[in-house]
Amino acid sequence: MKKFVYLFNEGNSSMKALLGGKGANLAEMTKIGLPVPDGFTITTEACNDYYEAGKKITIDVTEQVLQALHTLEDQTGKQFGNPGNPLLVSVRSGSVFSMPGMMDTILNLGMNDETVEGLAKLTENPRFAYDSYRRFIQMFSDVVLEVDGFYFEQLLEETRENKGYSSDPDLSAADWQEVIAGYKGIVKKHTRKAFPQDPKEQLFLAINSVFDSWNNQRAIVYRRLNKIADHLGTAVNIQSMVFGNMGNDSGTGVAFTRNPSTGESDLYGEYLINAQGEDVVAGIRTPLPIRTLKEEMPKVFQQFSETYELLERHYKDMQDIEFTVERGKLYILQTRTGKRTAQAAIRIAVEMVNEGIIDKNEALLRVDPEQLNQLLHRRIDDKFERKQLAKGLPASPGAATGQVVFDADEAETLTNEGKKVILVRPETTPDDIHGIIAAQAVVTSRGGMTSHAAVVARGMGKACICGCEAMKIDLREGQFQVGDTVVNHGDIITIDGATGEIMLGEIPMIDPELSDEFQLLLSWADDVRDLGVRANADNPEDAKKAFEFGAGGIGLCRTEHMFMDSKRIPIVQSMILAETYEERKVALDQLLPMQQGDFEGIFEAMQGHPVTIRLLDPPLHEFLPDKEELLVEVTKLQITDPQSRELKMKEILLKKVRQLHEYNPMLGHRGCRLGMIHPEIYFMQAKAIFYAASSLAERGITVNPEIMIPLVGHVNELKEMRKLVNEAGKQVKEEKGTVIDYTVGTMIEIPRAALTADRIAEEADFFSFGTNDLTQTTFGYSRDDAEGKFLQTYIEEKVLPENPFAVLDTEGVGKLVEMGVTLGRQTKPGLKTGICGEHGGEKHSIEFCYKTGLDYVSCSPYRVPLARLAAAQATIRHGSRKKILSIR
Amino acid sequence: MKKFVYLFNEGNSSMKALLGGKGANLAEMTKIGLPVPDGFTITTEACNDYYEAGKKITIDVTEQVLQALHTLEDQTGKQFGNPGNPLLVSVRSGSVFSMPGMMDTILNLGMNDETVEGLAKLTENPRFAYDSYRRFIQMFSDVVLEVDGFYFEQLLEETRENKGYSSDPDLSAADWQEVIAGYKGIVKKHTRKAFPQDPKEQLFLAINSVFDSWNNQRAIVYRRLNKIADHLGTAVNIQSMVFGNMGNDSGTGVAFTRNPSTGESDLYGEYLINAQGEDVVAGIRTPLPIRTLKEEMPKVFQQFSETYELLERHYKDMQDIEFTVERGKLYILQTRTGKRTAQAAIRIAVEMVNEGIIDKNEALLRVDPEQLNQLLHRRIDDKFERKQLAKGLPASPGAATGQVVFDADEAETLTNEGKKVILVRPETTPDDIHGIIAAQAVVTSRGGMTSHAAVVARGMGKACICGCEAMKIDLREGQFQVGDTVVNHGDIITIDGATGEIMLGEIPMIDPELSDEFQLLLSWADDVRDLGVRANADNPEDAKKAFEFGAGGIGLCRTEHMFMDSKRIPIVQSMILAETYEERKVALDQLLPMQQGDFEGIFEAMQGHPVTIRLLDPPLHEFLPDKEELLVEVTKLQITDPQSRELKMKEILLKKVRQLHEYNPMLGHRGCRLGMIHPEIYFMQAKAIFYAASSLAERGITVNPEIMIPLVGHVNELKEMRKLVNEAGKQVKEEKGTVIDYTVGTMIEIPRAALTADRIAEEADFFSFGTNDLTQTTFGYSRDDAEGKFLQTYIEEKVLPENPFAVLDTEGVGKLVEMGVTLGRQTKPGLKTGICGEHGGEKHSIEFCYKTGLDYVSCSPYRVPLARLAAAQATIRHGSRKKILSIR
Repeated sequence: MKKFVYLFNEGNSSMKALLGGKGANLAEMTKIGLPVPDGFTITTEACNDYYEAGKKITIDVTEQVLQALHTLEDQTGKQFGNPGNPLLVSVRSGSVFSMPGMMDTILNLGMNDETVEGLAKLTENPRFAYDSYRRFIQMFSDVVLEVDGFYFEQLLEETRENKGYSSDPDLSAADWQEVIAGYKGIVKKHTRKAFPQDPKEQLFLAINSVFDSWNNQRAIVYRRLNKIADHLGTAVNIQSMVFGNMGNDSGTGVAFTRNPSTGESDLYGEYLINAQGEDVVAGIRTPLPIRTLKEEMPKVFQQFSETYELLERHYKDMQDIEFTVERGKLYILQTRTGKRTAQAAIRIAVEMVNEGIIDKNEALLRVDPEQLNQLLHRRIDDKFERKQLAKGLPASPGAATGQVVFDADEAETLTNEGKKVILVRPETTPDDIHGIIAAQAVVTSRGGMTSHAAVVARGMGKACICGCEAMKIDLREGQFQVGDTVVNHGDIITIDGATGEIMLGEIPMIDPELSDEFQLLLSWADDVRDLGVRANADNPEDAKKAFEFGAGGIGLCRTEHMFMDSKRIPIVQSMILAETYEERKVALDQLLPMQQGDFEGIFEAMQGHPVTIRLLDPPLHEFLPDKEELLVEVTKLQITDPQSRELKMKEILLKKVRQLHEYNPMLGHRGCRLGMIHPEIYFMQAKAIFYAASSLAERGITVNPEIMIPLVGHVNELKEMRKLVNEAGKQVKEEKGTVIDYTVGTMIEIPRAALTADRIAEEADFFSFGTNDLTQTTFGYSRDDAEGKFLQTYIEEKVLPENPFAVLDTEGVGKLVEMGVTLGRQTKPGLKTGICGEHGGEKHSIEFCYKTGLDYVSCSPYRVPLARLAAAQATIRHGSRKKILSIR
Repeated sequence: MKKFVYLFNEGNSSMKALLGGKGANLAEMTKIGLPVPDGFTITTEACNDYYEAGKKITIDVTEQVLQALHTLEDQTGKQFGNPGNPLLVSVRSGSVFSMPGMMDTILNLGMNDETVEGLAKLTENPRFAYDSYRRFIQMFSDVVLEVDGFYFEQLLEETRENKGYSSDPDLSAADWQEVIAGYKGIVKKHTRKAFPQDPKEQLFLAINSVFDSWNNQRAIVYRRLNKIADHLGTAVNIQSMVFGNMGNDSGTGVAFTRNPSTGESDLYGEYLINAQGEDVVAGIRTPLPIRTLKEEMPKVFQQFSETYELLERHYKDMQDIEFTVERGKLYILQTRTGKRTAQAAIRIAVEMVNEGIIDKNEALLRVDPEQLNQLLHRRIDDKFERKQLAKGLPASPGAATGQVVFDADEAETLTNEGKKVILVRPETTPDDIHGIIAAQAVVTSRGGMTSHAAVVARGMGKACICGCEAMKIDLREGQFQVGDTVVNHGDIITIDGATGEIMLGEIPMIDPELSDEFQLLLSWADDVRDLGVRANADNPEDAKKAFEFGAGGIGLCRTEHMFMDSKRIPIVQSMILAETYEERKVALDQLLPMQQGDFEGIFEAMQGHPVTIRLLDPPLHEFLPDKEELLVEVTKLQITDPQSRELKMKEILLKKVRQLHEYNPMLGHRGCRLGMIHPEIYFMQAKAIFYAASSLAERGITVNPEIMIPLVGHVNELKEMRKLVNEAGKQVKEEKGTVIDYTVGTMIEIPRAALTADRIAEEADFFSFGTNDLTQTTFGYSRDDAEGKFLQTYIEEKVLPENPFAVLDTEGVGKLVEMGVTLGRQTKPGLKTGICGEHGGEKHSIEFCYKTGLDYVSCSPYRVPLARLAAAQATIRHGSRKKILSIR
């Protein structure tokens, strides 16, 4: 006779196909000696047998189930239907793949009018017993007898109303007995039969139900969508119930094998005597720390200690364990890998290596890179409650507290006086830079994740929230309003840049601390990883920070931020407004030494590691005053002071601003299109780079500049710009007599560049995928517009699986990246490739970059540690490859 | 002995490898009996022989050249170096492929101090003879003796200055003799030898030079770039010179075998007696019509008549012939396919088929589709001079004359009074529609090829010029200014929408006329073509026009233009400004019957042919007032009337306009993103389509609606919108009881859609490639910004080979189209695909569409004939395929 039923102690984790996922796991836990409540599994073959027999449980299966049930009674010392010591069981479905739509769980099967009395006596808690019984009737009737749950809810509500109760806990044992009578009436009315009192009848009806649910509509659709074969069938798990509320020799609790907060290797948890799991959660009684169990139940504690050590060794990770003691006997109800803080994750991983439990690779895989992020920023202490006032876009992580100010100058003044301020603006412009530098954090009501405030703040590692549209700022009154709450200039607020939350008042913070374990783990990551990690840094300070965090180079140095310094912006504006080449040249000559100085600082910070410098990218109008503000000023002056010189000047400026205005600046006159039309600007920048390099070379410091031309769409653009850079190099070489090794490459950030990468590679020494813009153009999304208007809805409603600006869209944008790499290397087999969009600091995207064969990722300095770990994980998961870049 | 030299009458056109392209053609013309001046060709093998011998002309070659020269003297009756009747020859290189960088032509070789005298006597024109000699010296010295041409130019300039002449024709025969003496001095000085006087020495030096030029630097680079094998070698062509200025039995002329202006089959041309070719061009003497040659030189005319008929039969096309008569003997110097007007091209092609000269396919290939365009619009008569005042973007072809008006209302009023007006605006908005309808043409100073004015005018087939930035419009004064010229309200201007030119005053026009030949040719095209042609039409009038022009359906019906009607725009605005769903519903309910009416008209016009209707595409703010104008109004009112109700209203409106404002509208909240966030709008549109279809069906008229969802980037968007359309269909079906067959598809207009076309095809019945937007996103160009700011420079400087908005960029955008088709048909093998961007009306792009396997192209109604012809040409060039669409 075929074996259709397996006791838990007869199976193991390899028998998934036969026992289903749940059944195999229960068997495995039993096998390694865990005290799990006894039970047995009816195999998936029994399910197929059921269908072959025309939806009937065959005699063979029936006989084996009854046999197993008998064994279960022996194992537990309880009997089905025995009021003195009733066996109650749970019945659960268990297919090979977890499948929504199938019957899930029936608890307390075996209860009837007699056993409920027994349970009441045993637990000395009649209220609990009757409540359990009515729950069983309701669940069983709904799932097995197909009586709509609505009728039961309705009756319960009527009862509550009649008795004037506000919630279920108000009902006494007697009340529940009344409800039970009503429930039975409902069952009788709808099924024309009494609620089944025979536990065995209950059991077989439940088994039937599980088998039937394998072919219900939802399950069939789910299998079709997920390509799961129909013939697999489902198993059924029957497990004895245990109760922690059977007296003072019973109890229940939860425990972690290590401290989930600090990672310390020390049992951590709590328990309650004579209680059910719910009581621990409900918080009515205060649980005791797990250590006191040693005194209260020394034998149980001893057993538990052995068990949790066994569990951790077996699963090789910190476990989160639910247990119940029934009349002095320990049962493990559930064990799973425990959640932990970043700090704990690192400490546990490192210590488990030292303890010989796992190897280094396993340790590296254990820590979620994203978690590292919180360790590198000041953050709000989770111990304190946060009452959110408003929520904006989480533009730059970190937390800050300070007085609200609405003006950059004031931010600077107050900071110099030793005050802490948060700069709140509708949006920021280059004129506000000094205020951003001074402030603890920046909040704007308009603009998205790529707005000026966001980009500048991220570069500085400063907390920032953008596009908080709920916030109505009134600059004249010096206040902002959210709903009915008015926040005045000078009021204290706290913000969390990682979540976008704004809170009133001050909330305590935790300072970042990089533990020894943190450093050790990252050094292991560096030993393993085959993917370079660089940082995006625009100034010497950021470059230094990046170097400290372990960056192997600068992957993106955006030169426009150098232009936006408040001292430089007037020069930049005079360059833009110049009517003649000569006028423009004067401005450029003033800018050159400033840029040179920046480059010297960055080169010096990077100690010979490569520095990729991107020539000017944004459209020129970004450096000019806001068109609308100017228009308002001009309109006002036309009425109030029509003869003034000021009006005349502003009218001229407005005209120029209008000339440079663009309908779609994102797709306008920017990137190398600037260099093509105004070569003198790029020429100045290239010379500044070569002067800086020469100056350091004279001081004996190695430099490794990589000059990057942005927004190339056609190889001819790169060809022209490369000539220009080479000409600048030649001139500086002739002037200074120093030979500088440099390369010239391009951003791949518009689809056409990726599509024609074979052509573009002819003129490029390297490619750097600018996946921010590539995502914008590939999706046809303006990030600033999309995030406020439809993207949030798209993500919430799962139109898009993820925010493509956070996690690289491998299906679409990723296809272009792959084409870019493949076509580029078709022309130049050794072509160096990297990514410098924000995706360079996101773990899934980093994994994609590794698989696609990129040489390095580049991200903000504060994400470098994260990227080092993610790079190591990608290498471990997908196997090592020839190291292309030397890794610091 | 190997044959290294071929007389022209020994070869033919199949001997290209041996004789080079030019030599083979000269032989062919000689072979068919054309009186080409005699000569011979030295083979490419002689060139290789030269290099094998260490850059020496071998004895064999020398001997054969001398032999051929002797024959040439016999044939011409002239002798090398004989002053009485000197043989002069031209020497030309001639490789298999034409190759820049190689020696081109030396004329009049054989001239020396003696033969020049003979030529002077024979032509009775010593000035001509000496000028020819000095030219020969200069050319020969430069090319063969390698004396830089600069020295000769310098001497000539000095001579002119010394003699006080302003230009070369002022020099007399004696002056030229003086120059010749000076030239010889230069040669002596630089080569340390006298200028070679022996014609044979001249000849062999020249042959040497041609062979040497095969391996000069430019030729080598050119061969490498174009993958031409080095061993091919070059041939050398030696041909006797003839002179039309040897007396009254000589002459020269040009003739077309048919009238190049009308296509009439009648010899057309002119000639001069006793003159050289230059004289005809110079226009000093008035040439005579070719027919009079019959009387003046009957024998020559008879010979010429036979020749030109032979030529046309041989080349099977209308020929443009240059001929010279030397002492009563006719020579054909050149024959080539003649340029012709569109009208002539069509007539010639059709008549040649009737005459049995070519077949229909050949006739179809003979007419340039682009030429058809001029036949369909009124155009400026080329007989009249146009003095351009300014030039803008050629936004919509056609020409118009009228009074300048600056206001849409006035345009309407004056037109109703029977006046013709041209509407001139900085830019147009939906409020101006009635003015555009009324005006003869529209001119704007701002905006590009996709601006409101351009799109509306093209749809109406009305001439339009956009973005004419040179034009400074002063609306208050009612005038515009270009440079110093002021044009006032009421002044007459003429514009040419095909070139973008604006002219003062009136210029006569030619009305379009579609000849019988035109219709016949297009019917042949329809018989041949395997590619459907549809039209883009947004209203019943355009649809009717499209149908008349032979469109097989509507490929793109843009529903937003229906919204922009001046009567509807207030309702559209109230829909947008609605604060509640109910308010919005009221507006939508008003719009529904209006849309339904439009659809009914369009369906009726198309008589059952498919109509692809695109649901609303542009961002909603396009329907609201301009933000800047509103801002100025509000600012003014704040000062002048701060308590007014008007201010309050405008402030509210401004707030809404600001809310809807986008940084990059092109990449913003538009297309299906509108339908996703405001499903009620798409739902109304879908219902209007189904109501219209039902209403026609009730009248027994077949309808074939294809509902198109714009701007899909992820399959989930299409999935949702398809559900919505189906739901609308279901509701209308239940209400009306009529079953409407319809399909639902999508535009492929952003890169991600093409990249994931396999997924999108799961939910699409058809794809229509929106290559306007696809070009914008693939290049990262905003068309409105690019065309004014850098695109022109890119095209002029050949950074881009073509304007990608006019000619589809096959390398980049085309790759996405190919991917889209391939991936889409991978999922659905029979997936219907078309193109509805402006490229659908451009011949190169149409050819690409055919090669890529698209089923149809769709273009503006006025380009339908062009597209039909281009589709036929593509089919002929690339072979027929299974017909997928029925062609009207």
